[in-house]
Amino acid sequence: MANVEDKKSVLDPWGTTVVEDYDHLYEEFGIQKFKPLLPEIPNPSMYMRRGVIFGHRDFDRVLETMKQGGDFAVMSGIKPTGEFHLGTLMTAREIIYFQQQGAKAFYAIADIEAYEDNKLPFEETEKIAVGNVADLLALGFDPKNGYIYRQYTEHRVRNLAVHFGAGVTLATMKAIYGERHIGLYLSALVQAGDILMPQLKYFDGPKPTVVPVGVDQDAHLRLTRDLANKFRRKFKFVAPSSTYHKILKGLDGSPKMSKRNPMSYFTLNESSKSIAKKISNAFTGGRATVEEQKRLGGVPEICPIYEIEMCHFVEDDDDVVEVYNCCKCGSLLCGEHKARTKKIILKFVEDHQRKREKLVDKAREILGIK
Amino acid sequence: MANVEDKKSVLDPWGTTVVEDYDHLYEEFGIQKFKPLLPEIPNPSMYMRRGVIFGHRDFDRVLETMKQGGDFAVMSGIKPTGEFHLGTLMTAREIIYFQQQGAKAFYAIADIEAYEDNKLPFEETEKIAVGNVADLLALGFDPKNGYIYRQYTEHRVRNLAVHFGAGVTLATMKAIYGERHIGLYLSALVQAGDILMPQLKYFDGPKPTVVPVGVDQDAHLRLTRDLANKFRRKFKFVAPSSTYHKILKGLDGSPKMSKRNPMSYFTLNESSKSIAKKISNAFTGGRATVEEQKRLGGVPEICPIYEIEMCHFVEDDDDVVEVYNCCKCGSLLCGEHKARTKKIILKFVEDHQRKREKLVDKAREILGIK
Repeated sequence: MANVEDKKSVLDPWGTTVVEDYDHLYEEFGIQKFKPLLPEIPNPSMYMRRGVIFGHRDFDRVLETMKQGGDFAVMSGIKPTGEFHLGTLMTAREIIYFQQQGAKAFYAIADIEAYEDNKLPFEETEKIAVGNVADLLALGFDPKNGYIYRQYTEHRVRNLAVHFGAGVTLATMKAIYGERHIGLYLSALVQAGDILMPQLKYFDGPKPTVVPVGVDQDAHLRLTRDLANKFRRKFKFVAPSSTYHKILKGLDGSPKMSKRNPMSYFTLNESSKSIAKKISNAFTGGRATVEEQKRLGGVPEICPIYEIEMCHFVEDDDDVVEVYNCCKCGSLLCGEHKARTKKIILKFVEDHQRKREKLVDKAREILGIK
Repeated sequence: MANVEDKKSVLDPWGTTVVEDYDHLYEEFGIQKFKPLLPEIPNPSMYMRRGVIFGHRDFDRVLETMKQGGDFAVMSGIKPTGEFHLGTLMTAREIIYFQQQGAKAFYAIADIEAYEDNKLPFEETEKIAVGNVADLLALGFDPKNGYIYRQYTEHRVRNLAVHFGAGVTLATMKAIYGERHIGLYLSALVQAGDILMPQLKYFDGPKPTVVPVGVDQDAHLRLTRDLANKFRRKFKFVAPSSTYHKILKGLDGSPKMSKRNPMSYFTLNESSKSIAKKISNAFTGGRATVEEQKRLGGVPEICPIYEIEMCHFVEDDDDVVEVYNCCKCGSLLCGEHKARTKKIILKFVEDHQRKREKLVDKAREILGIK
């Protein structure tokens, strides 16, 4: 239960995603606000409507093409270091959303990054990747209109990395990534290759591309936009666009979900029992006593249970507004809310696991893994 | 003509390659002297016999395997930035020598290095590489017992580079190559991949490998030997051995042949007229006047004409000794010597060009270039 001073009540069901802490991003890094674009988007996703996607770079360009039915791409990926969790779920759904809006979809298995950054050998990431791709397919990714690949075996991406090597100074790398081993810098060039590969001739040439990522990935985008510019003459690149989603709080009240802290998150392939336990033990925006909560209402703005439900598991905006209001007015107590959320999540996860199981062979085939 | 004080006369026909200036290499960098191994080599090459190859690292290991008829490899290559000259000729002949002694021979077209270091686009280095490979074949490289490849299209080499990235700190790279763009460091990892690729399973696994190079390339060897050690557990690498040849003087008397100075060198595909002119204009170890030279003798130790002849173009040791003695005693004057050398070189070059022309299609086929 929360033990915090009352926050200024903003009465905004999407308030938990108001990115007060991220305000400096707009000023310092030139990330643009997403909200002003929202009314122009024909069929905005749940993440867009609820402010989970709060910022962007040049998304206007993609939006324009999308509205005109032109050729555009969506590109993102996963570092294959473990099972799908709510963060990778978000990226996957963003890609699938854009795919459904007509984008050519690209999904990178960042196994070179997993190796260089986390020392995971390719023999291991290969196995993890199969599961990740099965998850992606179970979530609705259409492989017929999309391209899923591993960095280690995708020579187009690695060719681009070789080209880009001539365009990045050591000073730039150090400014972005700090003093690291060379492989980490190499993996950054490969990632720039991932982002720009959709614009190669083989994939029908230059086009607007949106990269939906967590805001913590912006440095990669800045690097890649710079490279797109430097190599424009040779490849005719259009600078890639991006959208930024916020980083979700940990279930245990920590600032973000983290593998280091197993009670802060769950995976889509965890047992129902384990997930249920984590939700039961979760931090909430509740008051010190039931009496107090009934009198003052809860604080959904700081509540990870509310945040998870709102961001991921309740599609209908009206439903979310109702939960928000009931929490605020003190009629929905934390125990009841947790029970309800648990039910929704477990149903989703069990359905997902069933679908996923049937897609493992397909995933293997897509990745060319025996 | 030379205008120098008399050097201490050592009366050693191979004296021009006595590497006085290189003495610090033995102490500072731990390069081993080649001479003590010479008596153990069954069939030493001209470069070995004459001290052009003056140093090595762990060549004993290769020698042992060679004598026992075991499996070993020779690996070197060329940066495809122009036509074959006497430096690349030397490396090519060293590889061919070891191939004839039973080594599996590997020849890398370092097009990634040419791109990262010299900004040469791959479209251009591709064309240059065809000529270089035709030269190599004309010199006697046997493609049936050898493997010629481009870094940019050889994925095994690039896979190794990705692996090695995790094993090199920024500090190491800066110590070796200075503060450069990231691509230059990437190309160093690729080069380590070149050197260790012969030991991959695909090429029948770990084996002693000799890398014959100019002594200016030793830093690459040190880096690669360090990586072989770091990745021994995974790949079972044997640390690569190396031999070092000295860097030849420029024809114009400059300390080394250099593209920046066209009168200092010639290529194997230059016109006879142009080569003849460069030899005629060359610096020599002659005296100020004919009278003085007849009296004191010439100084072959500082003479690029003598050096070129001795290092490259006269196979019979007795012939070289005779030239040396005639120069030393003043009976062979520079004009006559130049005329003789010109004749030998032009014959070689003209023969070479004829052979090479017929091998261009074969080179194209080997490189997979239409």
